[in-house]
Amino acid sequence: MKIALAQINPTVGDLAGNAARIIDFAESAAREGADLVVYPELCVTGYPPLDLLESDAFIDAAARTMEHIARQVPESVGIILGCPLRNPSPIGKRLINAAVLFEGGLEVGRVTKVLLPTYDVFDEYRYFEAGTTGPPINFRGLRLGLHVCEDMWNNEEQADYHLYAANPIDELAAQGIDLYVNISASPFSHGKHRRRCEILEEICHEHGKPFVLVNQVGANTEVIFDGDSRVHNADGTLAVCAPSFSEGLVLWDTQAPTSMCTKTHDRIADMHDALVLGIRDYVQKTGAFEKALIGLSGGIDSAVTAALAVEALGPDCVDGVTMPSRFSSTGSVDDSRSLAENLGMTIHEIGIAPAVESFEQMLEPLFKGTSFGVAEENIQARSRGVTLMAISNKFGHLLLTTGNKSELSVGYATLYGDMSGGLAVLADVFKEDVYALARYVNQRADREIIPRATLEKPPSAELRPDQLDSDSLPPYGVLDDILERYVERLQDVDVIEAETGYERSVILRILRMVDRNEYKRRQAPPGLRVSAKAFGMGRRLPIVMNPTHRSIPVTPEESA
Amino acid sequence: MKIALAQINPTVGDLAGNAARIIDFAESAAREGADLVVYPELCVTGYPPLDLLESDAFIDAAARTMEHIARQVPESVGIILGCPLRNPSPIGKRLINAAVLFEGGLEVGRVTKVLLPTYDVFDEYRYFEAGTTGPPINFRGLRLGLHVCEDMWNNEEQADYHLYAANPIDELAAQGIDLYVNISASPFSHGKHRRRCEILEEICHEHGKPFVLVNQVGANTEVIFDGDSRVHNADGTLAVCAPSFSEGLVLWDTQAPTSMCTKTHDRIADMHDALVLGIRDYVQKTGAFEKALIGLSGGIDSAVTAALAVEALGPDCVDGVTMPSRFSSTGSVDDSRSLAENLGMTIHEIGIAPAVESFEQMLEPLFKGTSFGVAEENIQARSRGVTLMAISNKFGHLLLTTGNKSELSVGYATLYGDMSGGLAVLADVFKEDVYALARYVNQRADREIIPRATLEKPPSAELRPDQLDSDSLPPYGVLDDILERYVERLQDVDVIEAETGYERSVILRILRMVDRNEYKRRQAPPGLRVSAKAFGMGRRLPIVMNPTHRSIPVTPEESA
Repeated sequence: MKIALAQINPTVGDLAGNAARIIDFAESAAREGADLVVYPELCVTGYPPLDLLESDAFIDAAARTMEHIARQVPESVGIILGCPLRNPSPIGKRLINAAVLFEGGLEVGRVTKVLLPTYDVFDEYRYFEAGTTGPPINFRGLRLGLHVCEDMWNNEEQADYHLYAANPIDELAAQGIDLYVNISASPFSHGKHRRRCEILEEICHEHGKPFVLVNQVGANTEVIFDGDSRVHNADGTLAVCAPSFSEGLVLWDTQAPTSMCTKTHDRIADMHDALVLGIRDYVQKTGAFEKALIGLSGGIDSAVTAALAVEALGPDCVDGVTMPSRFSSTGSVDDSRSLAENLGMTIHEIGIAPAVESFEQMLEPLFKGTSFGVAEENIQARSRGVTLMAISNKFGHLLLTTGNKSELSVGYATLYGDMSGGLAVLADVFKEDVYALARYVNQRADREIIPRATLEKPPSAELRPDQLDSDSLPPYGVLDDILERYVERLQDVDVIEAETGYERSVILRILRMVDRNEYKRRQAPPGLRVSAKAFGMGRRLPIVMNPTHRSIPVTPEESA
Repeated sequence: MKIALAQINPTVGDLAGNAARIIDFAESAAREGADLVVYPELCVTGYPPLDLLESDAFIDAAARTMEHIARQVPESVGIILGCPLRNPSPIGKRLINAAVLFEGGLEVGRVTKVLLPTYDVFDEYRYFEAGTTGPPINFRGLRLGLHVCEDMWNNEEQADYHLYAANPIDELAAQGIDLYVNISASPFSHGKHRRRCEILEEICHEHGKPFVLVNQVGANTEVIFDGDSRVHNADGTLAVCAPSFSEGLVLWDTQAPTSMCTKTHDRIADMHDALVLGIRDYVQKTGAFEKALIGLSGGIDSAVTAALAVEALGPDCVDGVTMPSRFSSTGSVDDSRSLAENLGMTIHEIGIAPAVESFEQMLEPLFKGTSFGVAEENIQARSRGVTLMAISNKFGHLLLTTGNKSELSVGYATLYGDMSGGLAVLADVFKEDVYALARYVNQRADREIIPRATLEKPPSAELRPDQLDSDSLPPYGVLDDILERYVERLQDVDVIEAETGYERSVILRILRMVDRNEYKRRQAPPGLRVSAKAFGMGRRLPIVMNPTHRSIPVTPEESA
């Protein structure tokens, strides 16, 4: 039997568009002789549909769309679709997260997702009632171990601990299956690809059955899906594999097991491709923008953002603006011009002095007797923000923000200033990785895209004379390490101190900066997620809080 | 036996401060002869602690704090505390949401929350594993039916449908109890008070037992808790009741049942009190601001925001700024001055013309040949935003935004302009209710606080000549009705059209405006929640989406 892995890029909510795409893939698969076409989790609605799932009208329309698709695909193929459906039970959440098998326009099998991820960016128990592991589904003589995404992840070898009592993989094996079929919407984060491979290999080794996994590809607001759909043979080897970060239709013949070479992955290259996809899908799926717009400072963050945007949209669809102030180095304009030239994109120059001077004059009566400080620094950043947003509003450009995760963590950014924009490209990339991305961009092009001066100058916000990031922050290597431990691994001061030996006062100061700047992040534009713990919907902290827990003494018994 | 209802206002994360408060209440209760002091749900950490719960250091410190409290309270009282604790089972979420009874410094009883709200602003299954209904807990001869918040809400009479299979109230009754004890962190929304009363009366009628409910009071970021802790007698009548919107310690003697008059509630008065508490707690709990700052436009929204802020903080702690432009009516300054005078607050005047002209001049080369439009309107709103934020940064004032829910719904607000600020006071109040609040403010003061001119003038953003809200929006009565149905009740166009008879094209236009402006709301400051469905953490929608479901045809079978 020939199984087609239909790795599609759906748009959330776009039932009509997703249906057309699904039917199109089914037709291609049928032409190639497929018996069965498998699509990703919730492919009808796109993932994550979030609170669209609370609309009765949306749920009804999704069900109608699914039936419509089933009637439109070629008779020769069965299709497995993911779709939210009403919970048939009168008790529990109103919906289930279902995988449905259709043949000849009729539903011939259905399973309900058993394990509902409700952590990080996932809120599935907000909407769905959990099912129990379904019986194998017979299709043209094969018993399919059909299940949905998270259902494959409760593996003893992989999990730190058991989040769930059920183990659908084991339960399906116990019922007798010929192969596993998993439909997923499993987001990209660097390193996750390896874990996914390992868990698949282990399942194959343990149960001796082939494993078909079809994952969504594409970006929906902040969450990026890498695709990487695949079939592992019963011995765990990789049989076939769809591309990462783009759509693909891959066929696998159950009768003719193949073994292809393993895919190689590089952390920075993956991050690059994920961010490019994130920008492109934001622009294409909203359909609201002709171009992207970027404020170019001459620094590394805006340079990398511009390079990614040009890769995503082409040089004609990215405009830069350099906006020198009285504190800007000559490099800020020159290096921005070099970058724009290297990328083949347009750059405008608009000095912000007139606006800054006007604000200072307007505020003079109130500010008399005070000295230059954060208020004045922010007026500069915000004058740039107003300028960029005016261009964005006038010409319908998408303003991209350029701040990285290190800065966003410690609040080293101006709300309504450089934080203005529709999409925060580097919000989940620590500063040291921004440099690595810059080097990768140049290496990939085999020429200087990011100017050497930009790569080599010490980071500065240039909001007062001779300002350097290192005046108020530890070196980025140390800062990024502390931040990664606190923000991503949720370590606190004691553990960080014990494991790194950094000075406690430095660690504490950084942790407090992170806590105190939650209010800024709450108002940040959505940021593209490339780590397992990004700011945004996957990290939910109070703004009003007083984290005194670090001052609660550890009792002698506990520290013993 | 004397039971004290300790309705405290904890600060999220402030273990040290919350402990001091809890001990203080226990000492007062002991002096009044209490046997048992009952505190709200998660009183040790404050509610909602959100992702602080994912920090091991925080969880350990919370447990230590709970033990510390137990050792410090007077020996004569037992105490019931709410605290997150580690899940003793190796399977499932890492934590449980517990209610723990201490006597003489020792834990003598513990129950685990059974029903975990995971909808709207609640994310409990993100953190907690559900328990099973605990056995009654014996305390000084009484069998307490102890349970936590949501555990009392799965009532057949109240629920539209059964969200949960378990019913702790019935299960406790079946095990034999003398009275119910519920510890809650049950947020305020207008109308909820009545539902809470009804469900308590029904439980008492059904099971014939008294009911003690202790609810948190205070605001934590956007969520406001009204307190309203209470004891209902076995016959359902109200025995004692703590205040709404402020802390209180109320004693109830099980031996001497009392019957007090019922509390009366007025929707607008409650909303007023909730918003005042929300402002006050934001300022006091962050401890970061000396004053609040408000841009005064002469319109109804900024006037009501100012009145609420003055009520919350006092006139000396609220400054207003009027910022006329070339399009401002004379009323915008005069009415703002009258308001400030009525409220006894300071007002500054800063004309924004210099900044606006500077931006226009800076952008002239780029904008040449284009006509005045949204870009130019937004430059005005953003010049005001920069001015206000400069004052906020310079003097450490909390900038309050003034936009209401109607405007925020349809995107009738400028991102980084009038949406700039730390707290959105009226973000969950529709325009018609803003007027009702204004009338209530004047009626309550028995004099003109909100100037009559402000109450009577037609709403306008004054961003171009002779602009009126009604130019581009239906009358607020119609608009608010459509919005309430779509945003709060999740109705879609078919239902709204059928129930109201409004023109379909008008409804569709409003719905599309709401959808399209999700990107603005994502970057809005937190808004005080007073309805059952506010924007913010309780409503999670994709920005990148294409809601084509309204164009999916309804099949003949379905419409039949």
